[in-house]
Amino acid sequence: MAPTLKTNTLAAGQLAAALLALRARTPLVHCLTNTVVAGLTANVLLAAGAAPAMTDNAAEAAGFAARAGAVLVNLGTPYADTTQAMSCAIIGAQDAGVPWVLDPVGGGALPWRTALARAWLADGRPAIVRGNASEILGLAGGAGGKGVDSTAAADDALTAAVELARRQRCVVAVSGAVDLITDGARLARMGNGSPLLTRVSGTGCALGALMAALAAVEPDALVAASAATALLTVAAERAAQHSAGPGSFAVALIDALYALQPEALAASTRFV
Amino acid sequence: MAPTLKTNTLAAGQLAAALLALRARTPLVHCLTNTVVAGLTANVLLAAGAAPAMTDNAAEAAGFAARAGAVLVNLGTPYADTTQAMSCAIIGAQDAGVPWVLDPVGGGALPWRTALARAWLADGRPAIVRGNASEILGLAGGAGGKGVDSTAAADDALTAAVELARRQRCVVAVSGAVDLITDGARLARMGNGSPLLTRVSGTGCALGALMAALAAVEPDALVAASAATALLTVAAERAAQHSAGPGSFAVALIDALYALQPEALAASTRFV
Amino acid sequence: MAPTLKTNTLAAGQLAAALLALRARTPLVHCLTNTVVAGLTANVLLAAGAAPAMTDNAAEAAGFAARAGAVLVNLGTPYADTTQAMSCAIIGAQDAGVPWVLDPVGGGALPWRTALARAWLADGRPAIVRGNASEILGLAGGAGGKGVDSTAAADDALTAAVELARRQRCVVAVSGAVDLITDGARLARMGNGSPLLTRVSGTGCALGALMAALAAVEPDALVAASAATALLTVAAERAAQHSAGPGSFAVALIDALYALQPEALAASTRFV
Repeated sequence: MAPTLKTNTLAAGQLAAALLALRARTPLVHCLTNTVVAGLTANVLLAAGAAPAMTDNAAEAAGFAARAGAVLVNLGTPYADTTQAMSCAIIGAQDAGVPWVLDPVGGGALPWRTALARAWLADGRPAIVRGNASEILGLAGGAGGKGVDSTAAADDALTAAVELARRQRCVVAVSGAVDLITDGARLARMGNGSPLLTRVSGTGCALGALMAALAAVEPDALVAASAATALLTVAAERAAQHSAGPGSFAVALIDALYALQPEALAASTRFV
Repeated sequence: MAPTLKTNTLAAGQLAAALLALRARTPLVHCLTNTVVAGLTANVLLAAGAAPAMTDNAAEAAGFAARAGAVLVNLGTPYADTTQAMSCAIIGAQDAGVPWVLDPVGGGALPWRTALARAWLADGRPAIVRGNASEILGLAGGAGGKGVDSTAAADDALTAAVELARRQRCVVAVSGAVDLITDGARLARMGNGSPLLTRVSGTGCALGALMAALAAVEPDALVAASAATALLTVAAERAAQHSAGPGSFAVALIDALYALQPEALAASTRFV
Repeated sequence: MAPTLKTNTLAAGQLAAALLALRARTPLVHCLTNTVVAGLTANVLLAAGAAPAMTDNAAEAAGFAARAGAVLVNLGTPYADTTQAMSCAIIGAQDAGVPWVLDPVGGGALPWRTALARAWLADGRPAIVRGNASEILGLAGGAGGKGVDSTAAADDALTAAVELARRQRCVVAVSGAVDLITDGARLARMGNGSPLLTRVSGTGCALGALMAALAAVEPDALVAASAATALLTVAAERAAQHSAGPGSFAVALIDALYALQPEALAASTRFV
């Protein structure tokens, strides 16, 4: 499969331009996400330059999604009523042409939510699906991990990611020490980051939210997902330099997202 | 309308006395708030000197509200069951003479929650209604903003705030770069703060919680709401001096709330 | 009662060995906890060396609990559907021989959740019950406190804790300035900590989660609960040395949990 993919054809300047557009437009990002990371997600979006709003009840989700710049659907802590709101938001987004991002947390490992995610993919077309290797493998039919953390390396999920991207005509992002982002024809392999990202709860979920924020301002979803990945992982490298552990790292990460300028992003992004 | 209002007649010493009472009495503040900011709200209340408790199920909310020092009802992420708990808490608080604060997050922009807030105002009388300009305008019948952030300046909402305060016989607080607080007869215009407050999720919601904490110890709700506003915004000025961005600002804000003494509050508060 | 208890018979080296096992095995800790502290709980577990996952819906909780290393059931913000998930998780854990920890937040003060906790204790056997003195007294039939914070000192709850431990054949941990941990035959009295722990929301809840993490790797629940207590309270002492208030303390606490090594834990633990 790999030979048929055009690899690392994006220019860092495209990512910088997407960040510039984010800062200029402050898109409303409608997040239906889990209760563990909602606060971090909102703060990451605010620091990066987006306007987050978490409206995850069924009475309001469809109408709100239609007016948003982008929608995030994250399956970290699904409940009966919030999953109904997610279904409404997806319909509202699609009908209005608003891009939406699916983060199938626990996909594969947990049957109920995996079935929910597959049903949404059967009926709809997200701009981006983001997960770790276990989740992407699980969503595509593999066994999944032991919980919400990845037990597979990103490269293990490449074939599944490409097939999913081609079937759904969307971008699939596999997060890990190396980040893989593909639309089925192109592949970005990105190598920034810090091991401390795995010691702070919700950094993967926040990455999904950043992908939604970038998809609100950048029509090429491969560029949007890659720019979001570069933004979080380059900020993480800077934050790690000022951290004594995961507590101070999480604080410095927000500061670094706020401070990171498009030119610096372009200069630091590594395709590998 | 403005000529009929007595403007900036509060003395900073009254605000300091309210903070002193808060520290002396550690009131129980019963918070029914949104899932995004619940943690920050609890930590802001603890740092300021109150005892937070989030009991937002219908089985317990009425009885718990009746025993609290004050109740906060925040509409950031309303669900079917938590809004039922909010209705119970309002009834429990009113029957027991416990002051309650309404924070109509997204008011005007989102019809379902706006109808909920209006129904509560039709049947009950909060001590304080707090929102940004868009939310106060939206609650009073205006168009509201694009999401939960204000798209109007506080002064635009002054007429709506005064009318709402007079109709409800309560205090209405409009948060912004300038904070407006009115009971329909008096107006406090306050000018402390930092732009970083808008880059941390939940600072407005935490301000509503501080208003509840102060209302638990100070019977004049105009003084309570003004003291809470001064407490958060003066602490924000101090925190901003030790911050590299919104991450470190949020941490320093909690430290500053904890350290701020009544005399220093009085000395730093600016009526404008 | 006290004369029949063997007091402070644990060796600090046993606690260090438990921490070493935690770091070596990274157990999956299935947390059904409250919305206020879920983020902090996840970050405390990640910093300490465990793998948290919050799966608190009824469709998935039983199956997930059966595959976890340990389960935490925390009653801070119970809802109709999450309490159903908790019941499912308890059954799933017990059937699979997975240890579970009960944190009866607000026990005694709030009738509905107190009845829930008592029903779970009537049908099941947790490895550890953790609360403050008011909660343990309340669970055992006393009056409880005014809210979720303790209004009783830990020693006041000793008799109730020992009786509860004997009746349930479990460990009962009473958190406070002095921490009491008993299995009905043995008693550990531990004296580390910092007053700042009471100014950060969720440190008690996070302690319950750490007890679950340790119970996943250490079959003697008295050792597990004592090791968790030492881990949090020794880390708190270190964090307090680098803190200007509860905001910076919370950040430093996560860093200290991450940095604390087993030998240092053993050297700093104080039995009193």
